[in-house]
Amino acid sequence: MRVGFLQYSPVFGDKKGNLERVEEMLSGEKNALIVLPELCFTGYVFKDREELDTLAEEAVGPTVEYLTPIVKDNNLFLVFGMAERVGERLYNSSCLLSPEGEIKIYRKAHLFNKEKSFFTPGDTGFPVFDVTIGSNQVKVGLLVCFDWIFPEPWRILALKGAQIIAHSTNLVLPYCQDAMITRAIENRVFIITTNRMGEEREVTFTGRSQVVRPDGKILIRVGEESQGVWTVECDPLEAQNKMVTERNDIFQDRRKDLYRIEVK
Amino acid sequence: MRVGFLQYSPVFGDKKGNLERVEEMLSGEKNALIVLPELCFTGYVFKDREELDTLAEEAVGPTVEYLTPIVKDNNLFLVFGMAERVGERLYNSSCLLSPEGEIKIYRKAHLFNKEKSFFTPGDTGFPVFDVTIGSNQVKVGLLVCFDWIFPEPWRILALKGAQIIAHSTNLVLPYCQDAMITRAIENRVFIITTNRMGEEREVTFTGRSQVVRPDGKILIRVGEESQGVWTVECDPLEAQNKMVTERNDIFQDRRKDLYRIEVK
Repeated sequence: MRVGFLQYSPVFGDKKGNLERVEEMLSGEKNALIVLPELCFTGYVFKDREELDTLAEEAVGPTVEYLTPIVKDNNLFLVFGMAERVGERLYNSSCLLSPEGEIKIYRKAHLFNKEKSFFTPGDTGFPVFDVTIGSNQVKVGLLVCFDWIFPEPWRILALKGAQIIAHSTNLVLPYCQDAMITRAIENRVFIITTNRMGEEREVTFTGRSQVVRPDGKILIRVGEESQGVWTVECDPLEAQNKMVTERNDIFQDRRKDLYRIEVK
Repeated sequence: MRVGFLQYSPVFGDKKGNLERVEEMLSGEKNALIVLPELCFTGYVFKDREELDTLAEEAVGPTVEYLTPIVKDNNLFLVFGMAERVGERLYNSSCLLSPEGEIKIYRKAHLFNKEKSFFTPGDTGFPVFDVTIGSNQVKVGLLVCFDWIFPEPWRILALKGAQIIAHSTNLVLPYCQDAMITRAIENRVFIITTNRMGEEREVTFTGRSQVVRPDGKILIRVGEESQGVWTVECDPLEAQNKMVTERNDIFQDRRKDLYRIEVK
């Protein structure tokens, strides 16, 4: 099946314009799972919670409304970050929008730095969603940016059967992309890390979006300043195979009998 | 404090000769923690369990006897892999030998490939040991080779307070060294990965022993075919600091409330 990412530079606060830019970039893409960056329509560097509040919306809101005919007409699964309002709370969420317009949500569990002043830590746990594209059925987990530094959410998603982890980011540091090779190897899953690029209120984002295979091979990695959509063929069944040698199934080999501190 | 590694190519089966070579390589080293490779006196590529059995010994045996005056005279803590016999069982163990000749043991939890035919999986869990060199007190965890691919033992050692993880290896694949940068970052610990080099019964080992800092910086990494002892100054207190931004303590930020699958 076809999977990939859209790397670009949203304009802060211009939700309508960003949606139009993304629509244009997606034109011609069909029958694929495409991952967009974290908070990819609002921008990221909020002055305060109030400013974020004016840009946040409910999951079923104008952004999803705008995107629904696009995914419907082109048989696309889109993953994108959004500032989600739930009552009084604001979450840094990742949405999986199906071609039927159905929306699934993951709310960022590990907030980064000043996000703690604006957002509520996620309450969804780490769900795995079913995606069907043509004859391909695949289980997809969602994570957001700083979740990368914690091995636990990746492990949990993989143990729950995720074959592809869609990782929407707004990275400013250079460590994550290489670390995702380790995450792919240790869990034998595909990882799509989509970063934004460009500058916003004097913060520079580092691009280098990528797709990594369960054996740690980089299928695509683009530059720091590249803009566009890139996709690649992948076989989700490769993520079912947890063997790293003929005697080592890395899930069977886990010494749950010794992993005691985790139960505390 | 001074920490480092000894990278070399043991001669298969020649325990006495290998001990002499290591003694010579260590001459001049004082007041340091030095990590040697996995199974660094016996060799690694055993034909069968019987051959391993003839080379294995109890933890308090001729190898430790030989090394004790060396560590005593030079105030060294040595970590080294050994084929350990306990009754009928054989373990792929890592030993920490103190200048007082006291020995602490970790038995490899995750056996690699054919090791499963020879060794019993480790039963020690993941202990953390206290090491005092001069005025420096440091908590040290031990892991062996293929343990690298599992995030759990590293996490457990770090949560138990390990500041340095001494990782003795016989690596044949190229992934581990870079993955240890991720392990260092995600746990904010020092990692000393000591690999052997050279060829044994048509298996080639990949060297590139290294010391990585809690922020992922490589303090030393040597070549695939380098032989020698390398040490570097490190401040174990750096591993106490789990802050990656002014708002993110990566241990406090762990969402234990959501890490549910681990409890199963």
